[in-house]
Amino acid sequence: MTTTVIIGGVAGGMSTATRLRRNDEDMEIIVLEASNNVSFANCGLPYYAGGIIKNRAELLLQTPEALNARFNLDVRVNTRATSIDRENQTVSITTPNGETDAIHYDYLVLSPGATPIELPIEGSERALTLRTVEDVDAIVDKLEGAQTAAIIGGGFIGLELAENFTHRGITTTVIERAPDIMAPLDTEMSRIVRKHLEANGVRVFTDAETTLIDERSVHLADGTTVDADIVISSVGVAPASELAREAGLEVGARGGISVDEQQRTNDPKIFAVGDAAEKRDHNSDEATLVPLAQTANRHGRLVADIISGRDTRRTATLGTAIVGLFGLAAASVGWNERRARAAGKNLRIIHLHPADHAGYYPGATQIHMKLVIDADTDLILGAQTVGKNGVDKRIDVLATAMRSGLTATDLADLELAYAPQFGSAKDPINMAGFINDNMVNGEQTIQFYELDDELSNGAVLIDVREESEFSAGHIPGATNIPLNQLREKATDFVDKRVIVHCQVGLRGHTATSILRNHGVDVANLDGGYLTWSTAR
Amino acid sequence: MTTTVIIGGVAGGMSTATRLRRNDEDMEIIVLEASNNVSFANCGLPYYAGGIIKNRAELLLQTPEALNARFNLDVRVNTRATSIDRENQTVSITTPNGETDAIHYDYLVLSPGATPIELPIEGSERALTLRTVEDVDAIVDKLEGAQTAAIIGGGFIGLELAENFTHRGITTTVIERAPDIMAPLDTEMSRIVRKHLEANGVRVFTDAETTLIDERSVHLADGTTVDADIVISSVGVAPASELAREAGLEVGARGGISVDEQQRTNDPKIFAVGDAAEKRDHNSDEATLVPLAQTANRHGRLVADIISGRDTRRTATLGTAIVGLFGLAAASVGWNERRARAAGKNLRIIHLHPADHAGYYPGATQIHMKLVIDADTDLILGAQTVGKNGVDKRIDVLATAMRSGLTATDLADLELAYAPQFGSAKDPINMAGFINDNMVNGEQTIQFYELDDELSNGAVLIDVREESEFSAGHIPGATNIPLNQLREKATDFVDKRVIVHCQVGLRGHTATSILRNHGVDVANLDGGYLTWSTAR
Repeated sequence: MTTTVIIGGVAGGMSTATRLRRNDEDMEIIVLEASNNVSFANCGLPYYAGGIIKNRAELLLQTPEALNARFNLDVRVNTRATSIDRENQTVSITTPNGETDAIHYDYLVLSPGATPIELPIEGSERALTLRTVEDVDAIVDKLEGAQTAAIIGGGFIGLELAENFTHRGITTTVIERAPDIMAPLDTEMSRIVRKHLEANGVRVFTDAETTLIDERSVHLADGTTVDADIVISSVGVAPASELAREAGLEVGARGGISVDEQQRTNDPKIFAVGDAAEKRDHNSDEATLVPLAQTANRHGRLVADIISGRDTRRTATLGTAIVGLFGLAAASVGWNERRARAAGKNLRIIHLHPADHAGYYPGATQIHMKLVIDADTDLILGAQTVGKNGVDKRIDVLATAMRSGLTATDLADLELAYAPQFGSAKDPINMAGFINDNMVNGEQTIQFYELDDELSNGAVLIDVREESEFSAGHIPGATNIPLNQLREKATDFVDKRVIVHCQVGLRGHTATSILRNHGVDVANLDGGYLTWSTAR
Repeated sequence: MTTTVIIGGVAGGMSTATRLRRNDEDMEIIVLEASNNVSFANCGLPYYAGGIIKNRAELLLQTPEALNARFNLDVRVNTRATSIDRENQTVSITTPNGETDAIHYDYLVLSPGATPIELPIEGSERALTLRTVEDVDAIVDKLEGAQTAAIIGGGFIGLELAENFTHRGITTTVIERAPDIMAPLDTEMSRIVRKHLEANGVRVFTDAETTLIDERSVHLADGTTVDADIVISSVGVAPASELAREAGLEVGARGGISVDEQQRTNDPKIFAVGDAAEKRDHNSDEATLVPLAQTANRHGRLVADIISGRDTRRTATLGTAIVGLFGLAAASVGWNERRARAAGKNLRIIHLHPADHAGYYPGATQIHMKLVIDADTDLILGAQTVGKNGVDKRIDVLATAMRSGLTATDLADLELAYAPQFGSAKDPINMAGFINDNMVNGEQTIQFYELDDELSNGAVLIDVREESEFSAGHIPGATNIPLNQLREKATDFVDKRVIVHCQVGLRGHTATSILRNHGVDVANLDGGYLTWSTAR
């Protein structure tokens, strides 16, 4: 009988195991899980901490007994794999009662996940991390009676905890070392999320280095002290690849287990999936780390099929992600502008701020969108969406477009479902395509961070919004010429360099067209006053 | 000076006009609109009738004056084009005060829309139709004091009106001649919508022929009388192509103006867009009619670019559409199964009923999905989704996949944004891809309408749900073997033909795998008990 041993019983590991059984009734399938639970809802843990998910049992999607009854799996929790003997094809384990044993494998699948990165500071032992059901139990325990919380790290899990702690009435501070929270977002998009968090009572410190955790507070390098009955450390995760490394398996520069297009390590009997394994980046085709559940599940299924004799291959990874915070959603796919610039790409950047559905139907809300486009190929390298509604839909459409190699111009022709509750006859996705099409055909735009240089070089800045909008706040140095008056004044600007802008970019486009058709050297400020002011 | 005349000032016509001005400051652009309004919100009219949109001004997105101020357009409402003299390039018009005139054109764009099909029965003059702002004014007028309504035609607009009338406390009956409402949906999907309408107090008659409308009621061929203080006729629209036809322009079999890939008619100076023009079907590449706003707008922009000298082409049409009814959404893209079977395709049909987001997070609701797949090419020919939440997102992802030529198997690898409020680690779209992948690799399924034949031919039907589910309702002739007991009994079925099923298809898939791996000739009932029971 063939035996497959799987190390790790959550997303990737359990997807491998159940698929393997559906493929093959006869194989022996052993799953080793170091914690007390398999197949638990990782992504639900913050919401259990916040009391949104009330029943702890909801987190436990499967038990070893249920998995045995349905899939004839040998699932062993509280069981730690301690070493791999590749020559003899055995895994050494420590059993729940502390004994050691060795298990033979024909195939070995590594899905150990990732471990939270430790803070290298004094008092870090008081900082709790969140990865397992046991972790959330410890947090919930500590939350009893807590009035203040400090969360070190402004990534997805840290921010989700900030919302959930606030929901429980705890005064919460997020401390982020980088200039902005939510690294997948560029500055001007991240700021929208930050303002929303602050409006909901979360304190946010950025560029903030934590130096010490004591019994009552967290100390920052600038001398600030943050009261904290509970301290969370959420500064990222590292692939749990020690076991693989010790067994002589190849590990990449960032610690992920190296695998081929079939998730096979350099040992043909050993596969790796999930957060511990390297992925292939969609844009660069380089190795990358993307600790997301979807990919883990998908690669688990893939490995099971390969072990069962199918010749199939993974696709590259986009890293599509989303977070919901106090009713606001923030999502991203692919590369942000920072990453794309670092790769030396020639870019087209597009910001837009459309309504999620037809403005004439009650309840429309604004979506903030950014697209990062390779100007040489017209391919979409990445996108970011932030807003109350319809944010997940637009990022999913963009992820699908990226996966299939549609160009940014192709977005203009996507036929998306329109009724006034759900979208617009010109959907935000179509609008992005139209803006790109205009740029491809010679319309100039500039980014918010290019404006100062333009003005220093003598460009005229025209704000084409209405007078009331201009009075309520405008860019220093701007002249107000409402759009409907621009046509008659167009010839005044024929020999000048002009930057026009409106609130979000749409009227600016019309203004740009008018001036351009009069022979003016004109550019539209991309994303309008809204992007410019958000970025400040 | 070049003059472009545009007949029709709503979606297609006004998109042409404004884009043309952005392309060209100098061109004379004249828009002729037969009604009293341009650029009104067609798709909002039912919601104004229902009082959801409270302010009539919200429907009027633009006025002739505003369009002139911003885009220097010559917009003439209440102005009817009566004939086209192609040789002299003039359009004859009737002005608002009844005078006649002729306007020269260098380019002519036809965007006259469609007209409601008239009921060929006695009393049809009492039936109101809904197409313009004037139409909705007449309906709102008639609704005052009305207690009962009959809506003849169970398409999108008819059903939207049924919701809105009910919202106003009017007892409403929908009368549909076909066996099911909502023609884009197949029977078993349409029935879900019907049940929801009925649960919300709308009476629905299908297979119902209207024979007479009198002063108080609507009479059906089977003798039924439906009380109706107000009667709506909503039995479809026909392209408004008389003017084109009389001018000798080519018109297709279903009355749409024939155009090439640049929306040009057989006269190179005349273009046609919107509901009056033929489109090209994505699946068949044949001429089709798709009266949707998105396509009208898109083709308007396209024609403007072509007139301005750009060499660009339309893409084929998917016909993506959605309707919201009492909190339920029903959407479709491409062909339904009926249409695909009529085209003689070899099909794979997939039904699934996943949750819109992770089940462990509060508020998850069920989505009913159907995919129609070309078994020879693995391309997606069409899809239908029905449910409370997340329905528009999934249809948009599928529309994007179809547009880009992704296969059904590719859906398994789409990376869609997952957090528990928004989706699942295995999104419904991924699940559809997995099911397709299983079928490609030899797993058999049968459709609900194939079950009776299987049973007559001696197949054994096994219901693998739990005993409590079986007792609550099951398919006649089914034997209950809960999934977890199936493995030990598998060898009993080795020489038999077996159909297995569960509630939605997922446990049925595992059951199929178990039996198949024991050498049984087994098929899973696609969509499970839910699809089977809904279709009855």
